[in-house]
Amino acid sequence: MKNYTSINDIDNIHNWIEEAKLLKANPFKHIQLGKNKTLGLLFFNSSLRTRLSTQKAALNLGMNPIVMNVSGDAWGIEFGDGTIMNGNTAEHIKEAAAVVSQYCDIIAVRAFPTLIDKEKDESEHVINSFVKYASVPIVNMESATGHPLQGLTDAITISENTNKEKPKVVLSWAPHIKALPHAVANSFVKSMQKMDVEFVIANPEGYNLSSKITEETPIIHNQEEAFKDADFVYVKNWSSYDDYGKVLSTDPNWMITQDKLGKAKFMHCLPVRRNVIVEDAVLDGENSLVIEQANNRTFAAQLVLKKILENA
Amino acid sequence: MKNYTSINDIDNIHNWIEEAKLLKANPFKHIQLGKNKTLGLLFFNSSLRTRLSTQKAALNLGMNPIVMNVSGDAWGIEFGDGTIMNGNTAEHIKEAAAVVSQYCDIIAVRAFPTLIDKEKDESEHVINSFVKYASVPIVNMESATGHPLQGLTDAITISENTNKEKPKVVLSWAPHIKALPHAVANSFVKSMQKMDVEFVIANPEGYNLSSKITEETPIIHNQEEAFKDADFVYVKNWSSYDDYGKVLSTDPNWMITQDKLGKAKFMHCLPVRRNVIVEDAVLDGENSLVIEQANNRTFAAQLVLKKILENA
Amino acid sequence: MKNYTSINDIDNIHNWIEEAKLLKANPFKHIQLGKNKTLGLLFFNSSLRTRLSTQKAALNLGMNPIVMNVSGDAWGIEFGDGTIMNGNTAEHIKEAAAVVSQYCDIIAVRAFPTLIDKEKDESEHVINSFVKYASVPIVNMESATGHPLQGLTDAITISENTNKEKPKVVLSWAPHIKALPHAVANSFVKSMQKMDVEFVIANPEGYNLSSKITEETPIIHNQEEAFKDADFVYVKNWSSYDDYGKVLSTDPNWMITQDKLGKAKFMHCLPVRRNVIVEDAVLDGENSLVIEQANNRTFAAQLVLKKILENA
Repeated sequence: MKNYTSINDIDNIHNWIEEAKLLKANPFKHIQLGKNKTLGLLFFNSSLRTRLSTQKAALNLGMNPIVMNVSGDAWGIEFGDGTIMNGNTAEHIKEAAAVVSQYCDIIAVRAFPTLIDKEKDESEHVINSFVKYASVPIVNMESATGHPLQGLTDAITISENTNKEKPKVVLSWAPHIKALPHAVANSFVKSMQKMDVEFVIANPEGYNLSSKITEETPIIHNQEEAFKDADFVYVKNWSSYDDYGKVLSTDPNWMITQDKLGKAKFMHCLPVRRNVIVEDAVLDGENSLVIEQANNRTFAAQLVLKKILENA
Repeated sequence: MKNYTSINDIDNIHNWIEEAKLLKANPFKHIQLGKNKTLGLLFFNSSLRTRLSTQKAALNLGMNPIVMNVSGDAWGIEFGDGTIMNGNTAEHIKEAAAVVSQYCDIIAVRAFPTLIDKEKDESEHVINSFVKYASVPIVNMESATGHPLQGLTDAITISENTNKEKPKVVLSWAPHIKALPHAVANSFVKSMQKMDVEFVIANPEGYNLSSKITEETPIIHNQEEAFKDADFVYVKNWSSYDDYGKVLSTDPNWMITQDKLGKAKFMHCLPVRRNVIVEDAVLDGENSLVIEQANNRTFAAQLVLKKILENA
Repeated sequence: MKNYTSINDIDNIHNWIEEAKLLKANPFKHIQLGKNKTLGLLFFNSSLRTRLSTQKAALNLGMNPIVMNVSGDAWGIEFGDGTIMNGNTAEHIKEAAAVVSQYCDIIAVRAFPTLIDKEKDESEHVINSFVKYASVPIVNMESATGHPLQGLTDAITISENTNKEKPKVVLSWAPHIKALPHAVANSFVKSMQKMDVEFVIANPEGYNLSSKITEETPIIHNQEEAFKDADFVYVKNWSSYDDYGKVLSTDPNWMITQDKLGKAKFMHCLPVRRNVIVEDAVLDGENSLVIEQANNRTFAAQLVLKKILENA
């Protein structure tokens, strides 16, 4: 594996999960592997979990993390081809990616979508430009359409929390006041499609994810029906895909309650807005896995970095 | 000791001072103690000394420091209980503290007071929420009402600079154009109350600190009288406590001059506004201890981290 | 060598270049040299290459880098002597520099010019204040009038890319929409004056650099004439020096094209505005050295840090 930009880069998710569990059991075992290697973490957007867990993962492998807030610390970056750069951007991605490759052995990038220009977002122009112009491996720390470190994390967490051969997993939309990206939902869908699970998606009409992502996965517009006999309910808001980037509904009836959940385990990538997405009782209850998920972010990232370092 | 959030957490200040002096004499002696341990430094506010000295302290113990400007780098944090989070905050402290605990072995937090809502500030809701919801030890890097790393630093510095059995120490208010917190003054008072010193506070009327802090310490409204035979004059501005957060006076007669000081040593936590708080001659003179104080910040923090690591 | 603030601090550029090449061939050879030593990187302005390459250089020597964005992370710094600090600045450079010296073994500083007050800029009051008030060595990461890490980098890069005894090097002004500093151009001029090269400067009338810098170096106002038989063309925009900080021309005829360049190698410090300073074909062509230059930033910085550490 050279780059990790999508759930598609996971060749065998079962093997990956087992290897991640080994790292979790013995996090410092490979601390020589990253010796004198540097991980550059480039943030075009805010981050808490990704920022800290990816640094921690690098440290566990003996790497030196270097963090940069691209917008605040450096220059406006131009992604257009052939642009006459007499506007607000001062450095072209062709140079930026090639330059950072001189100082970092691996580059991790976070760049959210516009949620305005669907075609641009779906082209994944930021992360793909790094892949194209960098001379070192690229790790996706959440791009316009995917968050594969989160998707891998979630697969690990589900695996740790079930004994069933084929547990039922539901991805449910929940209301939110702002327009949010599809990245986490997309990567969760792709991750579950690789797992031995019964997987359905619950969302209001008008909120179907891209059919290129959901493919054969059943989509149910009735939350109660979808939650029936669920072992895991993974909750996330996203804005409309068809009416791109729009908030069509903030219907509180889609908020997750303990009553709706029953005995199912609750999952969310965080940050989560309490009593908007989900009621306090769920997050504060015994069936919430959100903190375990956050913990597994470290080992998902560590596994990805380890695979890249071993392949170098 | 699990957490270090207040001067109250110091069981025996004399022993602590002696141990800090040993660290200062041999800073790298315990560099194995923090191996593979991570210190998260979370800043809700600006910092120079605390930011650098606490990182340096962690490095001296072999720890990996990870710094985060919470406001700029991550999400707005909600502290209210039961809030419907449909406003500007995107992540609840319950999750934030628990999540950061997954990546950091110790969490250090800086969060200034509102200076508007006295009850909220005195509840220390930010630092106490971290204590409550984190699963790892918390270090106070200046909270609403205390700056115990500074208070410990100041005790060390006084100890290093006197041979007297019971030196006279004065805490003096000085003028400033902005409303400043009480945290440094409070922790200095509590620190001196534990020391073998003759301790008095000098401030204008209307500027008494909380009587819950000052307790039996004499408060004198005449600066000249207070400074008589002083060995150490510790200077700090603070806003009114009674008329909470207000600037009642910027009286330049309370500015510290060489003439007023006489042979007393001058102390200040920095940053200090020259020729507003204190005249140049004092800071540039031989009796200023401010740079030594700044140096001792490292060893106060290192002592606290060491005690926490040893207790883990 | 105590400080590295100017190309003047290079005693013998030929020896330095040879030593930098040795570091490049074996970057981790001296990883014990910086053990338990801390490099403070203080940024008053944006940075990409300098931020990353200087950290990488420190890591290659086993140092711990600590990065601080002075403006965003800490307090407004006052540089005036005798100022009554009742305005926007909260900490005087006298304290700031002395304090940071308590935590860092070397301090590296970036502070751009005003481009308004020529006298102030030429006094180099920021970097010189750090030199004056810090108790540890200072490294210039681009100051008002010089960028000596870049100048050293460029000398190394030219040396690596020629077999000629006396190659012809041209420094050419190129158009830009904003007023840019003279620092890079100045340090390149001073660096080339120390090298065995035929060196000329090409710029429009009104754009001569300070004659204190250019001294005997020929200045030609005809770009085509200057480029004749050039082996290296180093391109940079700068604002007018005589009409200080003004943009007198954005004449696109001074933009660098492949046609103008011929077989000469193209150099630029980056970031570069494509199709304003230089056409795409040059940057994307075989004769561009800009990525090699960026790579050499690491070894220029590493050499400077190594010399300072060895001298400590």
